Amino acid sequence: MPRITEEAKQERRERILAGARRCFARYGYEGATVVRLEQETGLSRGAIFNWFGSKDDLFVELAARDNERLSRIWIDEGLDATFRALLDEDPDWLGVYLSVAHRLRTDPAFRERWQQRAQAPQALLQQIVERMRREQAAGALRDDLEPEAIGRFLGVVFDGVVIQRAAGFDPGLDVVRALVRDALAPRASERARAEALTP
Amino acid sequence: MPRITEEAKQERRERILAGARRCFARYGYEGATVVRLEQETGLSRGAIFNWFGSKDDLFVELAARDNERLSRIWIDEGLDATFRALLDEDPDWLGVYLSVAHRLRTDPAFRERWQQRAQAPQALLQQIVERMRREQAAGALRDDLEPEAIGRFLGVVFDGVVIQRAAGFDPGLDVVRALVRDALAPRASERARAEALTP
Repeated sequence: MPRITEEAKQERRERILAGARRCFARYGYEGATVVRLEQETGLSRGAIFNWFGSKDDLFVELAARDNERLSRIWIDEGLDATFRALLDEDPDWLGVYLSVAHRLRTDPAFRERWQQRAQAPQALLQQIVERMRREQAAGALRDDLEPEAIGRFLGVVFDGVVIQRAAGFDPGLDVVRALVRDALAPRASERARAEALTP
Repeated sequence: MPRITEEAKQERRERILAGARRCFARYGYEGATVVRLEQETGLSRGAIFNWFGSKDDLFVELAARDNERLSRIWIDEGLDATFRALLDEDPDWLGVYLSVAHRLRTDPAFRERWQQRAQAPQALLQQIVERMRREQAAGALRDDLEPEAIGRFLGVVFDGVVIQRAAGFDPGLDVVRALVRDALAPRASERARAEALTP
């Protein structure tokens, strides 16, 4: 019964990832030892590393899922919903990202794997760009900047929210969202131009 | 000659702090062992911990200096200069901040010490607020938000720049600065009001 086998495989994979996520959040990246990964997943090291070659692979896969999930929220529901999703995230888990930042800069192999897998897939990024282009065409988003540039700004703001939540500070998200909205609103001159074009 | 003694004391204190900063940046917070602190400062543990009670004290003092320095740049030269100063910072050193974020949230004693010492002194924060109020009065900064709220937004953006630099990504600072400027520019309605008041 290959179909059930496939489901069972999938179920095991999910169980490993969920356990690893808890383990990273609870003990930090360095503290997530093989023994603790076994405890949190309820599976042997052989079973875990049969699916994921290393602790790095586990983390990169979890980060990839986060990025995909947040990208889909952005595509389907927009920026505000993405901010809210970030606020719902477990601060312990967000802290794990901070602890790998140094390695992202200094370990070329890890960085390579991150860029190939953890960053949102090109197809999703393309959909985010398309959403922004639609918003620009509708006059809801400034159109004097490329969506990619706007996306980089938002990446900085998202990262700032992550660090503040990981450190237990309240980022004052209402103000952050309001100011981001203003930063991205069509410029006055664009508005004047749009009005001039209205018959 | 008490004056020379005081200078010598001060010189030793600075030497310890400079060595500790290099040590943290080089080995990370956890990796900055007592032996490595001795190597980097060229002083014995007795001499080091005579001045600073613990590794935490050393780090908190270094963070306090960063905050004071950046606050003074903001007060004297404004926001753009503050962004530039952040860009000049050693990514290895910035990464140390990320590694203490978790403890800031979960270790009440460390958080308390941080809030009392590492955050910019009230007098400097007050000068930043005053600078923003002057900019608001001059029509260079939106005045529909309190300076404290604007400061929190900027804190998020600064932190986002820190994380990206620690991870070795280019935050695209030109765009970030331009969008922050737009977020903080007086609103169109304020401009209209200001113009209406002009005789």
